[in-house]
Amino acid sequence: MEKIPYKIYLSEDEMPKSWYNVKAVMKELPDPFLHPGTLQPMTADELKPIFCDELVDQEMNTKDEFIPIPEGVTDYYRMYRPSPLVRAYNLEKQLGTPAKIYFKFEGNNTSGSHKLNSAAAQVYYAKQQGIESLTTETGAGQWGSALSMACAYYGVPLDVFMVKISSEQKPYRKVLMETYGAKVHASPSTETAVGRRILEENPGTGGSLGCAISEALETAMSRKNCRYVLGSVLDHVILHQTVIGLETQTACEKYGIKPDVIIGCVGGGSNFGGLIAPFMGGRIKGENSIEFVGIEPASCPSLTRGRYAYDFGDTGKMTPLIRMYTLGSGFMPSPNHAGGLRYHGMSPIISKLFHDGYITARSVEQSKVFDVASIFAKCEGILPAPESSHAIYGAVEEALKCKETGEEKTILFGLTGTGYFDMTAYMNYNSGNMVDHIPTDEDLEKGFATIPDIGK
Amino acid sequence: MEKIPYKIYLSEDEMPKSWYNVKAVMKELPDPFLHPGTLQPMTADELKPIFCDELVDQEMNTKDEFIPIPEGVTDYYRMYRPSPLVRAYNLEKQLGTPAKIYFKFEGNNTSGSHKLNSAAAQVYYAKQQGIESLTTETGAGQWGSALSMACAYYGVPLDVFMVKISSEQKPYRKVLMETYGAKVHASPSTETAVGRRILEENPGTGGSLGCAISEALETAMSRKNCRYVLGSVLDHVILHQTVIGLETQTACEKYGIKPDVIIGCVGGGSNFGGLIAPFMGGRIKGENSIEFVGIEPASCPSLTRGRYAYDFGDTGKMTPLIRMYTLGSGFMPSPNHAGGLRYHGMSPIISKLFHDGYITARSVEQSKVFDVASIFAKCEGILPAPESSHAIYGAVEEALKCKETGEEKTILFGLTGTGYFDMTAYMNYNSGNMVDHIPTDEDLEKGFATIPDIGK
Repeated sequence: MEKIPYKIYLSEDEMPKSWYNVKAVMKELPDPFLHPGTLQPMTADELKPIFCDELVDQEMNTKDEFIPIPEGVTDYYRMYRPSPLVRAYNLEKQLGTPAKIYFKFEGNNTSGSHKLNSAAAQVYYAKQQGIESLTTETGAGQWGSALSMACAYYGVPLDVFMVKISSEQKPYRKVLMETYGAKVHASPSTETAVGRRILEENPGTGGSLGCAISEALETAMSRKNCRYVLGSVLDHVILHQTVIGLETQTACEKYGIKPDVIIGCVGGGSNFGGLIAPFMGGRIKGENSIEFVGIEPASCPSLTRGRYAYDFGDTGKMTPLIRMYTLGSGFMPSPNHAGGLRYHGMSPIISKLFHDGYITARSVEQSKVFDVASIFAKCEGILPAPESSHAIYGAVEEALKCKETGEEKTILFGLTGTGYFDMTAYMNYNSGNMVDHIPTDEDLEKGFATIPDIGK
Repeated sequence: MEKIPYKIYLSEDEMPKSWYNVKAVMKELPDPFLHPGTLQPMTADELKPIFCDELVDQEMNTKDEFIPIPEGVTDYYRMYRPSPLVRAYNLEKQLGTPAKIYFKFEGNNTSGSHKLNSAAAQVYYAKQQGIESLTTETGAGQWGSALSMACAYYGVPLDVFMVKISSEQKPYRKVLMETYGAKVHASPSTETAVGRRILEENPGTGGSLGCAISEALETAMSRKNCRYVLGSVLDHVILHQTVIGLETQTACEKYGIKPDVIIGCVGGGSNFGGLIAPFMGGRIKGENSIEFVGIEPASCPSLTRGRYAYDFGDTGKMTPLIRMYTLGSGFMPSPNHAGGLRYHGMSPIISKLFHDGYITARSVEQSKVFDVASIFAKCEGILPAPESSHAIYGAVEEALKCKETGEEKTILFGLTGTGYFDMTAYMNYNSGNMVDHIPTDEDLEKGFATIPDIGK
């Protein structure tokens, strides 16, 4: 066994050659997408006008545990991967915990997050298929930045619908996307029918991921040879993100690290899903007994306070019906600096695993998240994104429990990104003006009322 | 010989154990600092009220080729080093050049640049000496960010004087420094006598590094047990930055890479000095014949249009007299987005090596710099800082020459940092509003008139 360095960098030869498809080993599968008109399971042919063919095939694949990564995607991955697995020695010292804390750091690329892992794959497949333009939505701006980078590299034009409140909180995200050649629209915009309708009903709205998705979908479907791409939630996105978990697994095996608990932040679920998938596969097969914990914002608590139901993925009700934990597609999350976690729904894979007891979840208020973000920044030298800081919070909670009990647990969490474009949030926190928004039961009931009643 | 990967990461064991002191092998040394009153060489005792003792000793050291890096500094380095040496395959393809292009990337840390290498060392020594607070200046904000991070880690309070124009162009830099606990003042400020004087003489000024240095110096000298730290120019800063060149050298030796030309951007000279120092040592000893090229902004051309003379390091004429290439301490560089390169002077080591013909220099307008920055961002997936992009420009020029001649040169450049906090500059460039400022001969004469006439 090699000596454990501060940061574990795998060699390029050790990078995964395939993604990991956890559905191939799940005992029960997530329920299929339903067509909102017929309530029948969607077929691949029905999905292919929206998504690229290869991505639909990946979405539907329930039998191959490993799906090869094309060389054209690996070429892109090599520009910023493998990412380091870091031992948080300083954080351990700061907390005085006997626990060992590791984090897989996905922020060392210009998009600032893990999102590039799926962006590169999706744009690669679009290019291969001869697609002439793409549309997408972005919340915090990390997905939009990542997709802009991938589109610039592979040469595919891109329109980004950016959640309005985020575009105001993060003006420089827009400039970054534009520097990479993307066209950026604040959502809701007046450029789509659904955007105009939402603006009419709710003129002062700061928008939401669900609403931006509707706008991007409408645009993609109204254009010739254009497709829509999504940065989270869907199974194929989680598939691409498993490059995170697979690298982590290789590093753990190489250095004899055995995590007791793996923690991630959950918004749509892609980073958490990608991080845990291969370990989850092992747990389902009885090879480990790792505990998996998702941390979500108290302002948008889909797992901890949502319902497991068929719902639309977007506010405009244009997507297939998806069985997932949801607050209702009409739920408008209150302002929160972790824009990437402001989504009413949740990945169907994560939802199913949570429902079946393989995953637990906790929620936390943003002011507490920034408390640990600030400590982490100072002692580990990395300024974390607000989203990622939810995972830090979970790890700190766990490490402090170990301090009480004396347990020497191995805690591993996903540090999905950096906060360089979140300085407004840090400014807000530094000045002591940060407010926590927790929806009341009444707020939630209003959201739940928008979940379609389809008798399931 | 191992196969050359896309990114070369050394192991932690391969990290340098010592810094490299090029003065120990230089055939002629830079001239000594002079006391502005007596015009006699400054002694260590005269410098120690301003700088930490150990740093003064390093500044004066002309005999030890290697100076050990303390374990307390290595602990910090391990959080973000070793940095990768990257083969710019995509840039080569984009340019259609037969040249091989490598860059040493120093941007993968929260401060966003190489500055952390000296910040960690300087704060470590201050803490060891029992210093109770530090002051500094910052131009682009990279040095201020780096020093704030190091001060947070080692636990030393910090005041930063930030060039006013930069603090306006980069508001989030200030928030970043504050997140790390620093106090930030826009310079010229009304908090120092020299700041008030400069404001009186030139009320609309955007400030300059030279002016911010005066303010930080005055503050340090007026406080008990406080020292001033500088992020560039001085020999001990270049010494700390040689960790860049030493890692590069180890990686080159490990993979059989033999650079024909090494290129860096030059402002105060610390990154370029640190990158080239060990290679320069080899060249002086006759072990290689590498060409060393510094690239500076046309708006602040100290090497290409300045004079080699004794001058003050700051606008307020508080520093010792330093023999260097200078535009005169009264030269006010016009606005330019590469704030880190807006300095009237130049490292005495770089100045001497340039004067003796070991280094060549070229200048370039910022609009051309952003042209290549934009290409580089798209094909290499890293958004470069405006400062660093000067080096990219130099490398591209060199690679295009190779395209003409068919030469397969190996070009290596320093990519000192990322542009995440320079989005105003990119916005300006994207919108087509970027203006180039080149000082006229008359402008330069005005600056030269402020160089003290001491008969040398």
